[in-house]
Amino acid sequence: MSDLKRKILDRTQADLAAIEAALRDNLGARMALVDEVAGHILFSGGKRLRPLLMVLAARLCGYDGKRDTFFSTIFEYLHVATLLHDDLVDGADLRRGKAAAYQVYGNSVAVLTGDFLLARSLSIAAETQSPAVIRVIAGITEEMSQGEIDQMMRRENLGLTEAEYMEIIRRKTAVLIEGACRVGALISGASAEETDALTGYGFHMGIAFQMADDLLDYVADTAVLGKAVGADLREGKLTLPVIHALQHAEPEDRARMTEIITRRDFSVSDFEGFSRLLRTCGGIDYTRAQAESHIRTAKERLGIFGDSEAKGVLTDIADYALDRKS
Amino acid sequence: MSDLKRKILDRTQADLAAIEAALRDNLGARMALVDEVAGHILFSGGKRLRPLLMVLAARLCGYDGKRDTFFSTIFEYLHVATLLHDDLVDGADLRRGKAAAYQVYGNSVAVLTGDFLLARSLSIAAETQSPAVIRVIAGITEEMSQGEIDQMMRRENLGLTEAEYMEIIRRKTAVLIEGACRVGALISGASAEETDALTGYGFHMGIAFQMADDLLDYVADTAVLGKAVGADLREGKLTLPVIHALQHAEPEDRARMTEIITRRDFSVSDFEGFSRLLRTCGGIDYTRAQAESHIRTAKERLGIFGDSEAKGVLTDIADYALDRKS
Repeated sequence: MSDLKRKILDRTQADLAAIEAALRDNLGARMALVDEVAGHILFSGGKRLRPLLMVLAARLCGYDGKRDTFFSTIFEYLHVATLLHDDLVDGADLRRGKAAAYQVYGNSVAVLTGDFLLARSLSIAAETQSPAVIRVIAGITEEMSQGEIDQMMRRENLGLTEAEYMEIIRRKTAVLIEGACRVGALISGASAEETDALTGYGFHMGIAFQMADDLLDYVADTAVLGKAVGADLREGKLTLPVIHALQHAEPEDRARMTEIITRRDFSVSDFEGFSRLLRTCGGIDYTRAQAESHIRTAKERLGIFGDSEAKGVLTDIADYALDRKS
Repeated sequence: MSDLKRKILDRTQADLAAIEAALRDNLGARMALVDEVAGHILFSGGKRLRPLLMVLAARLCGYDGKRDTFFSTIFEYLHVATLLHDDLVDGADLRRGKAAAYQVYGNSVAVLTGDFLLARSLSIAAETQSPAVIRVIAGITEEMSQGEIDQMMRRENLGLTEAEYMEIIRRKTAVLIEGACRVGALISGASAEETDALTGYGFHMGIAFQMADDLLDYVADTAVLGKAVGADLREGKLTLPVIHALQHAEPEDRARMTEIITRRDFSVSDFEGFSRLLRTCGGIDYTRAQAESHIRTAKERLGIFGDSEAKGVLTDIADYALDRKS
């Protein structure tokens, strides 16, 4: 474990334990089913990044109520609901190192359990009784579903631009992380300035987080990553390293990359060659630089807050988004 | 067309046209996709029962705003989202006389379009800015997803009781119709007594509506019904006509019915024999009597309201729930 990860975990131990307990409690009588179907997503090694960000954002804004942990589960349930449906859509084989739920339990159970978790998160959102919070949650679900539709419709689109990629990752990842931070501010009755700052922090964190994720698909190995390396490529998903490399490659290299992208059933050595091309054509470095830039912006947005432990942890989490190996 | 149906349509023509326009308008840029994927559910011959009930309930409570039609689309989008996911779960072949969406477009598109419609309905609910309305909508989505899970887990359960059946149809059908009527009252600022009356009307209408639907599976023919007769039996869904008949059949008849239920790939003549047994064992008459009783209760709940055209139409819709042939 990296020093940074340990430092974050040490200071969030109590929060993470409380989130863990709330995630189980809030499922009520459905706990057994969800545990069986989504347990290997929901209860095995997830980072709880989204609920943790909400709790920390609320603390940074001086939240003094007792429902922050309860409300924070919204963001993990939404996340897991999306994963359940997306794995089915993507035809993914592995999720956090295990077979995807739809493969083990069938499409039906994965769809309905995802629907249930989505519905559960909305019920918890309704309990905030805050129209502003509810609008954020409704907006997140709408943006995410549209993002997934866009991504699906643009598979194997070799002409995907960087701007289109940015819009896809905004919807599929950033809106949820942004929403978690925003809701943390909203439930605390934070000022508009504070709410905007945390919303901005969440947005840039989310963008960088997804870019780092897209990088891992080309630089990590399967055992560490917990999902098959090259999965994006196999599913026809063009991410920033590829988009940038295609744009800047010599014709011969571009032809070679295009051939592998459209073929899909590439060998391990094909994939290694592809990853090398991404590196030599600048796709890896460019993506890392973009992610670093978003992390810098995310941390800058916290500038209006005075120093506190919550601010320190939020800053470290931003750095960790780039540092992580899985 | 029956006289009753024509009478209802004559007096709701303007409402239905406004609902139709709102259903298209509220999809915005996604109209084309949804029209292609869910168009044959959303835009071809649906009855718009749920939005119509909301609009009529609001009118009965003296609603004087301009957003009733807009809000009413929530209930059709929720309904269609559920159908898209359920067809996939049930492995249904036909929906309103056409192949189910997941068969034409694949699982992915059906799941994501359902998610989008669900999300869209939540965004519209959030626009009411009414915590009470939002709680109703969140509750509906949660109950419906739980109902679907229950129904799936109880397939081919020959010991399914009438009480368990009632709980399944409450969740899968009644909560949405009840919710539409309740929200009509809530957006009108109706009294608690009026709100309760319309909630009760919707609940009993919903129960009767589903019982009538379950009857049609055994008494209608495929061309009129728009879905394959015997679909429930083929999917292992035990409905009230079957539950009652199994309980009251002589051992020999029960054995014959059980054999067909567990076999599933029955012939047309098997199915006709099965339907005859339902009739001779009292399952058809009992179910019709139960549905009639719920319709009576539904109409009684309108008793607190003075006479008006809206009340007249709501009364006729209740009668039509039993009268309909498809």
